[in-house]
Amino acid sequence: MGDLVKRLAVLGSTGNLGQQALDVVRALPHRFRIIGLAAGKNLDLLAEQINEFKPELVGYSPVDNGGERVPARLTDMKCEFLSLEDIACHPQVDIVVITTSGKAGLSPTLAAVKAGKSIALANKESLVMAGGIITSEAKLSGAQILPIDSEHSAIWQCLNGEEPKTARQIILTASGGPFRDYSLAQLEEVTVAQALKHPSWRMGRKVTIDSATLMNKGLEVIEAHWLFNMPFDSIRVLIHPQCLIHSMLEFEDGTIKAQLSYPDMRLPIQYALSYPDRLSNPRIPRVNWSEINQLTFEEPDLNAFPCLRLAIEAGKQGGTFPAVLCAADEVAVELFLSQRIGFVDIAHFIERTLEQHQALAHPGIEEIMAADTWGREEIMKLVNGDR
Amino acid sequence: MGDLVKRLAVLGSTGNLGQQALDVVRALPHRFRIIGLAAGKNLDLLAEQINEFKPELVGYSPVDNGGERVPARLTDMKCEFLSLEDIACHPQVDIVVITTSGKAGLSPTLAAVKAGKSIALANKESLVMAGGIITSEAKLSGAQILPIDSEHSAIWQCLNGEEPKTARQIILTASGGPFRDYSLAQLEEVTVAQALKHPSWRMGRKVTIDSATLMNKGLEVIEAHWLFNMPFDSIRVLIHPQCLIHSMLEFEDGTIKAQLSYPDMRLPIQYALSYPDRLSNPRIPRVNWSEINQLTFEEPDLNAFPCLRLAIEAGKQGGTFPAVLCAADEVAVELFLSQRIGFVDIAHFIERTLEQHQALAHPGIEEIMAADTWGREEIMKLVNGDR
Repeated sequence: MGDLVKRLAVLGSTGNLGQQALDVVRALPHRFRIIGLAAGKNLDLLAEQINEFKPELVGYSPVDNGGERVPARLTDMKCEFLSLEDIACHPQVDIVVITTSGKAGLSPTLAAVKAGKSIALANKESLVMAGGIITSEAKLSGAQILPIDSEHSAIWQCLNGEEPKTARQIILTASGGPFRDYSLAQLEEVTVAQALKHPSWRMGRKVTIDSATLMNKGLEVIEAHWLFNMPFDSIRVLIHPQCLIHSMLEFEDGTIKAQLSYPDMRLPIQYALSYPDRLSNPRIPRVNWSEINQLTFEEPDLNAFPCLRLAIEAGKQGGTFPAVLCAADEVAVELFLSQRIGFVDIAHFIERTLEQHQALAHPGIEEIMAADTWGREEIMKLVNGDR
Repeated sequence: MGDLVKRLAVLGSTGNLGQQALDVVRALPHRFRIIGLAAGKNLDLLAEQINEFKPELVGYSPVDNGGERVPARLTDMKCEFLSLEDIACHPQVDIVVITTSGKAGLSPTLAAVKAGKSIALANKESLVMAGGIITSEAKLSGAQILPIDSEHSAIWQCLNGEEPKTARQIILTASGGPFRDYSLAQLEEVTVAQALKHPSWRMGRKVTIDSATLMNKGLEVIEAHWLFNMPFDSIRVLIHPQCLIHSMLEFEDGTIKAQLSYPDMRLPIQYALSYPDRLSNPRIPRVNWSEINQLTFEEPDLNAFPCLRLAIEAGKQGGTFPAVLCAADEVAVELFLSQRIGFVDIAHFIERTLEQHQALAHPGIEEIMAADTWGREEIMKLVNGDR
């Protein structure tokens, strides 16, 4: 029994995905034990989580808290305070669950990869910004990347028992977001409140906006490229508003496999944690086929949603382009959320930022971080009219 | 190279599925070699196939040819003439492809199973009539049954790399046939020509009628029960008129896997032959997602299509019931094709035959064959008004 229990560290435990990961652990306490928790700003919830799961290790980021040292209400608890990177490679941890969002996820991901850990990875930016470095480091160390994104989990599950080199095409499905049928003119009128209402998935604010612009899908194309060693031209995006098929994989012989379930992130999270086992979890609802009349599919509209095109182009060009894409997008989404730019401006300013970029073809991590900084500064200059 | 070539015997080579199996071999001559061919009545085509594939063994059934011995135009060819059973267990044969239709498939299937062969099985009656005997003999001999039916192939493919005991439910899809939306009153007016026009699949006459009555799907439920050791209550039938999803498998954790392709029997045939490899075959068209707008699903109408219910009930009751079901259906379909009974009479007379049956719970092969004979006689008595 004892060695069936996997010891987890959840980085980003107070975020939406982190909370869902803890919900999986709650449902399956005989299989998982929380050894580490780490969070950015929501210290109240982190304290609650520490009380409930009694982790030995807690990650706390002074940077996210205005340089403040670990506050008293946390230090009173009996646990060791470490950096995210130290938790990510801690010998007591079997699986590092990285749900940290944004570029803050890159450094702990890299630490876990170098330590040869199993990494349940939800952070998109790590693979988008530094996919080449992460995948080659993982090869060296033997680290295993277990995707948590529903799309990549679907592809990974479809690959089970199959020879990877017989996979011919990834069909990445997308909900299409709340503005799927909007014309460009309609998109210009979109408000923040509208953009934050995703029709199918319950997610954090950044990824919800990225879903509305289809940037999210573009980032997933880049991730899929790295995770499954698939050329960009063999990754196809298909709009599927019902969000039941989470992605498909076409094989050499013409067969296509699909993975389906209700849109509930606990399923891909649990699969990454329990892999290769599948565990019954009464909290995850079964698909009720009496309720499902149709699944529909359509091609994405790259004119109305240029972010998808920009991401795929940045991915194809490689080098520091994807880092600049991520950086510019992170800033652009913040500016949209604070109503400083409009919805269609997000793609506009990202595209102009990418146009200004003098890319490096084979950057190291520091050059990637520099490109990130450059991208953030450049898009601000463009928005402020300094260019 | 040499040991990559699998040596095949195709039993039922002149039938629709047999011809498609030969088409797969034609496309992949470096992987497959025809060692044996066997056919019932279409001797012209059999002679052509012998000329093309130069098999060493040829099966010829005098029973199917009015007791006639092997005709001269066949004996002139340089090959050995054997019974289907002798070909099925011949040491030169790696895979026995059994596309023989009706109960004629049972005896060679059993011979191949006892000889521990790999059996690419399209014959439904073997598993429906004698699933318990075949699966337990296969366990003893180590014979492997490779399903060719598109539905069972789909389920089998979805099981790849998965722990079989984590499979929780089979979702068997059905086209619904040409009369999917018909009321009972409309079904009473159905003609033979209408019933022979299947909307999606190109198949033989018997299975086309069985598809129109949904008996075919009922037989597949019984096959799925035996092939995947799945309780009847965990097999669900779902009407899916586009015939793109060939079946689905739900796992313990709630994930569902589906296998998709255009309805083209060469794909499941090829998969059974090449398993565990997947081979590129330019003759098999790739799914074009620009053309696919929707996949729809609905529950089957058991009142309009009682054959599905009858088959599932016969499967659950077990013993000699499924043999009687098959026998009565074979006769009823012939009577419908020769316009002696109407479309809705097929189910009616099968049901009355089953009602008359005194079943044996654990029959041997002879008792199963006796039940078959009894079923054929009984339904004729009922149709002729002798009861």
